Amino acid sequence: MRQAFHDQLDAIFADLADLCGDVERAVRLATEALLQGDSSVAEQVISGDAEIDAEREQIEDSALLLLSLQAPVASDLRTVVAALRMVSDLERMGDLSVHVAKIARLRVPNVAVPEPMRPTIERMAELAETMVARTSHVIAERDVDEARSLAEADEEMDRLRRTTFADMLSADWEHGVEAAVDVALLGRYYERIADHAVSVANRVVFVVTGETPYAVDA
Amino acid sequence: MRQAFHDQLDAIFADLADLCGDVERAVRLATEALLQGDSSVAEQVISGDAEIDAEREQIEDSALLLLSLQAPVASDLRTVVAALRMVSDLERMGDLSVHVAKIARLRVPNVAVPEPMRPTIERMAELAETMVARTSHVIAERDVDEARSLAEADEEMDRLRRTTFADMLSADWEHGVEAAVDVALLGRYYERIADHAVSVANRVVFVVTGETPYAVDA
Repeated sequence: MRQAFHDQLDAIFADLADLCGDVERAVRLATEALLQGDSSVAEQVISGDAEIDAEREQIEDSALLLLSLQAPVASDLRTVVAALRMVSDLERMGDLSVHVAKIARLRVPNVAVPEPMRPTIERMAELAETMVARTSHVIAERDVDEARSLAEADEEMDRLRRTTFADMLSADWEHGVEAAVDVALLGRYYERIADHAVSVANRVVFVVTGETPYAVDA
Repeated sequence: MRQAFHDQLDAIFADLADLCGDVERAVRLATEALLQGDSSVAEQVISGDAEIDAEREQIEDSALLLLSLQAPVASDLRTVVAALRMVSDLERMGDLSVHVAKIARLRVPNVAVPEPMRPTIERMAELAETMVARTSHVIAERDVDEARSLAEADEEMDRLRRTTFADMLSADWEHGVEAAVDVALLGRYYERIADHAVSVANRVVFVVTGETPYAVDA
């Protein structure tokens, strides 16, 4: 019974790592659509979200079945509940990638990000994608050290977001209101993807150590 | 045992309705801070969020204890898991109120919302607050009809948000980039509060009927 429980739990964590890999791909493609103004890549992210939603449902069903059949208690119960929360975070990260893709699509044949803002947004996007990739690894390997180091990457994300505001609100912003609104929302979306990645990683720390790291609330 | 389970579940739902009431207050105060440029009311929302977080923790602990001690299956299990998700939504709505309050605080002694945008933002805020209030009622009374009608209010929210974009991107927008960025983010925050309210209400429909209504993904 215990062995069956742990095998099923391992299968759920393997599925979570796979789902996180698919989210990473969505973030990467959304960024590609955004920076190249490519509507077909944007469509790919938007239509691909249904698959992320389906994976979420399948993982949720597995976790509920495990709760039903095995009635775990104590740390086992907390681990299954953590898995349920991780799957919600991951699905939400998929939705946020769709939001990025939709802004990209809205501006085709142009590019939503004005040229001088490109390095900052590119770095935010790269950071988000890397954080999601590291989160897959954290889930697959239960890597607590890597999970803890994600918080540092998140600090860089916060700094970059402040940079975008400083740029947009400076007197020499010459890209108009539309670009500013796009950049403000894009910054928000990438920041939220990073927050959710930290949240997923923190849940892994909790599962392994029983400790809850400092929460990211943004 | 069954009776004890249902008593404890009722207590959790009563706590969820109370928490939703506190979120409603946070939304209302955040809006007051925003529209009156009142930094002390903004501070009240920001510092008050710790209490919402504490309530969330307490409800989560109760739900986990119920899972541990009673090992519910089938619909009982799904109800407890739904409660865990509702509490996450509600906590997030508290965070979003804090975001509104922080924009308010940032612009004091001015008001973040330009005068001509006031009616739209006021209506969005009112709609969000009303939707949260209705959600408290949905939770307390397991009111499925009321839950279903929340989706209509959410459609008005989406329309209002489109209006803000049309206004900001029109040629006669004369309030500059800062106001546009503020309004874009405020619109996003109120829209997300409304989405989470619909999500909570949908979970009540699921708990009562076993059916999952159409999901809001925004």
